[in-house]
Amino acid sequence: MPVLVMKFGGTSVANIDRIRRAAKRVGLEVAKGYDVIVIVSAMSGKTNELVGWVNEISPLHDAREYDAVVSAGENVTAGLMALTLQEMDIPARSWQGWQVPLKTNSAHSAARIESIPTDNINGRFAQGMRVAVVAGFQGISPEGRITTLGRGGSDTTAVAFAAAFDAERCDIYTDVDGVYTTDPRITSKARKLDKIAFEEMLELASLGAKVLQTRSVELAMRYNVKLRVLSSFEEPSDEAGTLVCAEEEIMESKVVSGIAYSRDEAKMTLISVADRPGIAAAIFGPLSEAGVNVDMIIQNIAEEGRTDMTFSCPTDQVLRAEKALREAKERGDINYHDLVADTNVAKVSAVGIGMRSQSGVAAKMFKTLSDEGINIKVIATSEIKISVLIDRKYMELAVQALHDAFELDKAA
Amino acid sequence: MPVLVMKFGGTSVANIDRIRRAAKRVGLEVAKGYDVIVIVSAMSGKTNELVGWVNEISPLHDAREYDAVVSAGENVTAGLMALTLQEMDIPARSWQGWQVPLKTNSAHSAARIESIPTDNINGRFAQGMRVAVVAGFQGISPEGRITTLGRGGSDTTAVAFAAAFDAERCDIYTDVDGVYTTDPRITSKARKLDKIAFEEMLELASLGAKVLQTRSVELAMRYNVKLRVLSSFEEPSDEAGTLVCAEEEIMESKVVSGIAYSRDEAKMTLISVADRPGIAAAIFGPLSEAGVNVDMIIQNIAEEGRTDMTFSCPTDQVLRAEKALREAKERGDINYHDLVADTNVAKVSAVGIGMRSQSGVAAKMFKTLSDEGINIKVIATSEIKISVLIDRKYMELAVQALHDAFELDKAA
Repeated sequence: MPVLVMKFGGTSVANIDRIRRAAKRVGLEVAKGYDVIVIVSAMSGKTNELVGWVNEISPLHDAREYDAVVSAGENVTAGLMALTLQEMDIPARSWQGWQVPLKTNSAHSAARIESIPTDNINGRFAQGMRVAVVAGFQGISPEGRITTLGRGGSDTTAVAFAAAFDAERCDIYTDVDGVYTTDPRITSKARKLDKIAFEEMLELASLGAKVLQTRSVELAMRYNVKLRVLSSFEEPSDEAGTLVCAEEEIMESKVVSGIAYSRDEAKMTLISVADRPGIAAAIFGPLSEAGVNVDMIIQNIAEEGRTDMTFSCPTDQVLRAEKALREAKERGDINYHDLVADTNVAKVSAVGIGMRSQSGVAAKMFKTLSDEGINIKVIATSEIKISVLIDRKYMELAVQALHDAFELDKAA
Repeated sequence: MPVLVMKFGGTSVANIDRIRRAAKRVGLEVAKGYDVIVIVSAMSGKTNELVGWVNEISPLHDAREYDAVVSAGENVTAGLMALTLQEMDIPARSWQGWQVPLKTNSAHSAARIESIPTDNINGRFAQGMRVAVVAGFQGISPEGRITTLGRGGSDTTAVAFAAAFDAERCDIYTDVDGVYTTDPRITSKARKLDKIAFEEMLELASLGAKVLQTRSVELAMRYNVKLRVLSSFEEPSDEAGTLVCAEEEIMESKVVSGIAYSRDEAKMTLISVADRPGIAAAIFGPLSEAGVNVDMIIQNIAEEGRTDMTFSCPTDQVLRAEKALREAKERGDINYHDLVADTNVAKVSAVGIGMRSQSGVAAKMFKTLSDEGINIKVIATSEIKISVLIDRKYMELAVQALHDAFELDKAA
């Protein structure tokens, strides 16, 4: 029988009623003839409670013990889901990560999946079991200790199972009903996308769209796993949600698929840096070591051996960045006159695989912002994305204007 | 280094502060030179929450999934305790049941321990680890599924580890400071015992003293594990608590060590049963199959082929007992005129290994009750115990009078 993977996030299994509702959805797919692998998160709030205890005891904790503690929430949900399915007369059983076993490396709290043997679960499917409920987010290290995959890791667990079992699709049930052209709180014209390409979803995820963990999208892209994001609070339907799939499966697509934004960006400028070969490495090496996630970088034209260097990073990393650069200056590794941090900026991005084949997207974006009187402070582009830093007070206006300019309220 | 086992119950690890307090006690023993195995229960209330969810979903649940769910609480405490010890610079790590592995049979929810390999943990002790924190109450079946040992099973886990690792002692930390001559709520003259023999503790445990799980005492007796029951809320001291040990280690002991009682006993009488060989089996077979725990049994002298048969059982099993006997009558297996249940009774017992060598204890007990005008309804005796059923309203009076008569307020 074909295999379907269904993943339920914390809000979808927050209490017994919701677990029952999720189990009914599983029942619908079983009735269609699928063997189903259900991946569950912890009941919402439970993981935070466990993490809170660990941090209260030991802020700099042993990651192995952290993993042993925080994996408990998913184990509970897995057992409860299996019991609920059994109560509906659907043959089901639960697996904890080590029972599968989902093997990972030893990078505790951020482990990477190494293999998922399928014999055990497939053997049970062959004997008539219809649903394997697997605790998400967790695995076992070569040393036999429990590992976890990092927050949101249950998405990655689900995609990895879909790849290992060659599943027809991986349905991610969450509390939003799909991926939108932009945040509906910013413009009521935001429209749910029926389909989106892996690459676009990856850009959106890394731009702060919290629908899917970035790693799960990477994994889905690598193994070509069809991902569907949908809400467990809507009525079941074949058209529900957004399908994240390979570009080739999207017949008609717009040049721009979505507008993303981030409020938490800061712009930092090193004024009058002594320019010389290797200066970029001398600046960004220490920032990287200090754990600063530098996003955009621009360098102005050098005059008389000096240049201005501007970059953006998350607002909460500004102090860390300033410290790292000051220390580099004190060591004599770099030389600059001043360091200016501007935390009143926001990043707005247009994302679309259509940009690859169509020119003029950047020009249209810049003209739209200019027409609204919005000044662009920094520009960065990739193959399928254009991002700009602007004054934060214009952020909503910019998103609305770009959404209109690229006609995202209309279907392709 | 000598090994000590320390077990902390749910109230002793109810929150982070209490876990810290428990960890300090562990630290004191480590400082004395012990390698310590700590067995932890779930934080108080957690197991009940998990059991509640399981029962809400499925009253007649799959015991394998029940075990997978309810074992989660101990795993959390084990990790938190290991982190707390590490924070105190004590080398420690946690083990879940399947990691040891604590091997059990497949009797889910009431599994029996089959073996505890010591290589793994002893290897870590040899490398400098000082504390192994083990999640209590759980193990792994031959099929690789999680099992649990039944409520209170962490006591049994602790004793089994003490036996397997040849520990010097097994300290059971709980919310009472030891074993008393009787319930201090009934008489202020109740006195904490410094020592009590395994056999006496077994009788007291099965009579409803909730200090220790009966199975853990049986196991301690079989492997001669010295058990100490003490409170985690008292100041540490070598004299704290009550030592449960072999009879030989108790130099002076009274004839009677303690007075136990149970309010939850019912007396049932089958009136005018047709007496014939095998009639007892015909009555008590169906009761056993129905899960009725019959305690005392008396049969009056038969007259003209008929007899009265009286037995006691827990009050909440009366309906089940009546149903089983009615059905046996309908099948024609037994024949009686009437069935009378008296739920206004209580059981009072005197327990002491000294009874073996000293006569007159029963006579003294009966006279004491008679002097107080208390009528005895049923009597049952074992080698080291005399139990009587009396009217419930006289229960406190009987306990007080017997406590005085056997001078239990005075040390041996």
